[in-house]
Amino acid sequence: MEKEFFEDYEVGELLVSPGRTITETDIVLFAALTGDWHPIHTNAEYAKNTIFGERIAHGMLGLTLGSALIFRLGPYVFTPKKFIAFYGMDKIRFTAPIKIGDTIRCEATVVEMKERGEDTGTIAYDGRIKNQRDEDCVVFSPKILVGRKKT
Amino acid sequence: MEKEFFEDYEVGELLVSPGRTITETDIVLFAALTGDWHPIHTNAEYAKNTIFGERIAHGMLGLTLGSALIFRLGPYVFTPKKFIAFYGMDKIRFTAPIKIGDTIRCEATVVEMKERGEDTGTIAYDGRIKNQRDEDCVVFSPKILVGRKKT
Amino acid sequence: MEKEFFEDYEVGELLVSPGRTITETDIVLFAALTGDWHPIHTNAEYAKNTIFGERIAHGMLGLTLGSALIFRLGPYVFTPKKFIAFYGMDKIRFTAPIKIGDTIRCEATVVEMKERGEDTGTIAYDGRIKNQRDEDCVVFSPKILVGRKKT
Amino acid sequence: MEKEFFEDYEVGELLVSPGRTITETDIVLFAALTGDWHPIHTNAEYAKNTIFGERIAHGMLGLTLGSALIFRLGPYVFTPKKFIAFYGMDKIRFTAPIKIGDTIRCEATVVEMKERGEDTGTIAYDGRIKNQRDEDCVVFSPKILVGRKKT
Amino acid sequence: MEKEFFEDYEVGELLVSPGRTITETDIVLFAALTGDWHPIHTNAEYAKNTIFGERIAHGMLGLTLGSALIFRLGPYVFTPKKFIAFYGMDKIRFTAPIKIGDTIRCEATVVEMKERGEDTGTIAYDGRIKNQRDEDCVVFSPKILVGRKKT
Amino acid sequence: MEKEFFEDYEVGELLVSPGRTITETDIVLFAALTGDWHPIHTNAEYAKNTIFGERIAHGMLGLTLGSALIFRLGPYVFTPKKFIAFYGMDKIRFTAPIKIGDTIRCEATVVEMKERGEDTGTIAYDGRIKNQRDEDCVVFSPKILVGRKKT
Repeated sequence: MEKEFFEDYEVGELLVSPGRTITETDIVLFAALTGDWHPIHTNAEYAKNTIFGERIAHGMLGLTLGSALIFRLGPYVFTPKKFIAFYGMDKIRFTAPIKIGDTIRCEATVVEMKERGEDTGTIAYDGRIKNQRDEDCVVFSPKILVGRKKT
Repeated sequence: MEKEFFEDYEVGELLVSPGRTITETDIVLFAALTGDWHPIHTNAEYAKNTIFGERIAHGMLGLTLGSALIFRLGPYVFTPKKFIAFYGMDKIRFTAPIKIGDTIRCEATVVEMKERGEDTGTIAYDGRIKNQRDEDCVVFSPKILVGRKKT
Repeated sequence: MEKEFFEDYEVGELLVSPGRTITETDIVLFAALTGDWHPIHTNAEYAKNTIFGERIAHGMLGLTLGSALIFRLGPYVFTPKKFIAFYGMDKIRFTAPIKIGDTIRCEATVVEMKERGEDTGTIAYDGRIKNQRDEDCVVFSPKILVGRKKT
Repeated sequence: MEKEFFEDYEVGELLVSPGRTITETDIVLFAALTGDWHPIHTNAEYAKNTIFGERIAHGMLGLTLGSALIFRLGPYVFTPKKFIAFYGMDKIRFTAPIKIGDTIRCEATVVEMKERGEDTGTIAYDGRIKNQRDEDCVVFSPKILVGRKKT
Repeated sequence: MEKEFFEDYEVGELLVSPGRTITETDIVLFAALTGDWHPIHTNAEYAKNTIFGERIAHGMLGLTLGSALIFRLGPYVFTPKKFIAFYGMDKIRFTAPIKIGDTIRCEATVVEMKERGEDTGTIAYDGRIKNQRDEDCVVFSPKILVGRKKT
Repeated sequence: MEKEFFEDYEVGELLVSPGRTITETDIVLFAALTGDWHPIHTNAEYAKNTIFGERIAHGMLGLTLGSALIFRLGPYVFTPKKFIAFYGMDKIRFTAPIKIGDTIRCEATVVEMKERGEDTGTIAYDGRIKNQRDEDCVVFSPKILVGRKKT
């Protein structure tokens, strides 16, 4: 059940993380840590006159806190022993606002596996940060590099 | 000098942010806030036996803290008044490790501008998080949606 | 009035700390710092379907933040000059939930004093973290080691 | 437009910062970082029996977080290149409470400019931290030391 | 492999958590969050004249951050579905100092299982927070209440 | 020994707080919370080419964290029961840099007491934030408003 090698994955498999409620605290801490105090996130007077009607979380907060929820599944499910690198991410789109009190989770489906050289392979996911109403808030395509079994 | 509309930008222009030294504190706080405690970031015993020889920052820390450095340039340079949305990011690649004590900055060059419908346009940047030795640590392609001047 | 030696204490004396309102911020920070993101503390959707009907504080948050409230009394009342060590704690029980907005305080009564060797003695307390309705939320039995007056 | 020298300022000019909503999180973090847990800021039961009827922000939080809002204007407007030192502050008065949910901004007007020696000059401001109802919450008189243009 | 009921545990089984390096940041944050600024943890001048020769982590930091490391193993290994309550802890002893830079892990061995009423049972652990030299820094005896399989 | 009224103070009395070592963590957290990321505090490359040769703490950090150290003395020594308001501060001057690793304390001497109306009085202090070499880093003149004993 514990993943070790590239060969332990297959296209179509789905990981679903636990959920986390995004609080005002998370938004303030994210603004503070990054220095991104855009008023849509941190100025209630400004935000109430926007189309959202209230402060919303940073898009990057949704991506960052959301995608890390997968780590909660623990090393036995998530991290292959032969993990080599976090290769990158593609096509990040912020598709719906995350509001204070929304509860997000991450769903990641293996969509492509490619051998690469003699020893490794890349695994590409379709990642989605969803809220409690099952709406996609952030979609993204992360890719990892994993070692192959030597036969 | 203050940007207001899509028309106030041009392909090739470059923004360079102030620098920020990435500290052990930043890594601990990022691990805490996201829940990503991978040992390469938070376990010194583990990290000294990796190819890096020490703990390194999360790739997403480099992207998130690094890209937000642009906001330090202030509203007069950075944010156009007709800013509509952070459209997304493409091609994020983690190209060199950020170590404790490294000082990063963000450089963003306008690489593509496209009119979109009657009123708006997208501006695509080549973004680079560079360290004090001018090495690229993270490269990424953010895109924003901005209002056009109505003539 | 300032405690210096073991002999300055007596069985039955009671310390009552100032109060502190436990906020959503405290719970998020405690989850972040410890990595304990159990959904009963951090997932509002999950928590509303439990017997508590809402998120509650970690038991260890109640113990840790609650017991440290005694330090607010200041060095003149609390810490004997001959303090040697925090010996340990026994019988920690989590007897009632601490909810967001509850205001807790710590009450500690000296229940046992024992000479130990020639120079020191242990002082055992009955500790209680109480809420604004005077309910016990956490009970525990801390013990400290203090120097004796040399006669 | 970018300020470089003492001579680039003039008496009467006004800077207005962006706004920031002060949250419960800010108060808890400020209490934690400073160790000032006075019950008027951190004990809801105590605070509801005061003339404020609820917890209020620390006066020093208002001054510290409020005055730093000026930095959001960015280096091109705010910091002269020949900035030498933050000289000090005078006449700090806490004139109205800042409550959770209030949105503050900083307004700073140059009120006095004095040459000092051959090369430098001091610039004194009238600083005001105002809330969303345009009430002064903190008033203060900061002074900076800036280099003069050598003619 | 995923634990569901009381019956899925057995006396003698051992859980070993991942490790975490305790940093100066952790100590400052723990002092701030709890308000326990005892000089042995937060005053370098004071600490260098103690038997430790330097600042050490709070005993409760070791217990709290250390015991939560078990959660990193993920829901599939750690949390039984029929988990009912964190019953309490006994015999907490602080047996060796945790210094800045030490890497701790948690080892928990099931030492006693008792049926309790018709439906539940208690599982008692021997818990140990160990450092990178395999020394016990904190020992403690946590107990959880878990549902039984209905046959 | 516990102060209750204006009459319980006298000109010349001195309070000395416990010490606190200012860490890199404190500087990062203060920058984050306030948004003041001036490179002298947060950019090691920039700072090594200044007259200080390294990053230094914000002046306002020294004032804010330093002055709050007085609260550690506890309610029995510090806060009179008839405390009415923190009146303000005057003549804040930043007289020496606080560097990472410096240990600061606050010394406050009553310098002036004035009756005010029928019921209250103001108590003015000479406040000094000193480092481990007994140098003044910040000097300031806080004033509090306290109730008088009704005879």
